[in-house]
Amino acid sequence: MDLKKYIREIQDYPIEGINFKDITTLLKDEKAFRQVVEEISSYFANKGITKIVSLESRGFIVGGAVAYCINAGFVPIRKKGKLPSKTVKESYELEYGTDTIEMHEDALSEDDVVLIHDDLLATGGTALAALKLVQQMNVKKVYFSFICDLKFIENGNKDILSQYETHSLVEY
Amino acid sequence: MDLKKYIREIQDYPIEGINFKDITTLLKDEKAFRQVVEEISSYFANKGITKIVSLESRGFIVGGAVAYCINAGFVPIRKKGKLPSKTVKESYELEYGTDTIEMHEDALSEDDVVLIHDDLLATGGTALAALKLVQQMNVKKVYFSFICDLKFIENGNKDILSQYETHSLVEY
Repeated sequence: MDLKKYIREIQDYPIEGINFKDITTLLKDEKAFRQVVEEISSYFANKGITKIVSLESRGFIVGGAVAYCINAGFVPIRKKGKLPSKTVKESYELEYGTDTIEMHEDALSEDDVVLIHDDLLATGGTALAALKLVQQMNVKKVYFSFICDLKFIENGNKDILSQYETHSLVEY
Repeated sequence: MDLKKYIREIQDYPIEGINFKDITTLLKDEKAFRQVVEEISSYFANKGITKIVSLESRGFIVGGAVAYCINAGFVPIRKKGKLPSKTVKESYELEYGTDTIEMHEDALSEDDVVLIHDDLLATGGTALAALKLVQQMNVKKVYFSFICDLKFIENGNKDILSQYETHSLVEY
């Protein structure tokens, strides 16, 4: 099954010049959704992963299913002000201004092996901020998983991320 | 396993007088998370469900895993302005003002049997708006699933929702 065929491309969304990758057309197809979950799960099945850390909110969908499949716990990273208990925070640069993401400070421990999952790797800004959040907990090891990897975007964030074992299903 | 023990209660969050049910402590425990997914999935396994419709963003976590388990597609309902293609919309009342949720208009068809899943049933306002969105598609049948049901809140929304078969794991 060619998963790329299930991803809808939307021109000039959210702004002119961006060709947006819409995964909702993939998620609603039960066979394509199943293949995404099973390919990621089988790749990471034997790596001793104890927690899936996923990014709000598209990352939660496949992240939750993979956590179930590989028998791991699930930890959400959310936008600022959305988590109810005490958090650790990281800010990252946007084209204009900055954004902040948070994770509960009791979400992970030194014994955890973590898979950070998001739907899309674009500039790597949020992935790098997620990595810094997870590293604050001194976890044992970190892996990355993405559905789509926009390989044509190259920058310093991606140089850092390339030091971590990463699995992607669809490349552009 | 008593799932209620895994749900953290946070007093006076997000506002004074609310005793917030924090499911992140349940999700991060792989055994409790697994039990949640398996109890919901086994309850709905033989009902011919073709799509899980879940609400942004906590509903996505267990919703995605249940979709995988019962071999259904996954459809997100999101806050206004977050979905990239053409949508249907529903507004609902908040304590002050209104909020709007959206779903892609091509997400469901008349052949679908739908399970609407969210983490929490409180006033029923978002659940009822989700029902109206799904009904716009003339689907065959609708079921509801929640992790927590705040039964002590009674109102007209819940009278409407009670006409639909609903499964909840933890009641307050």
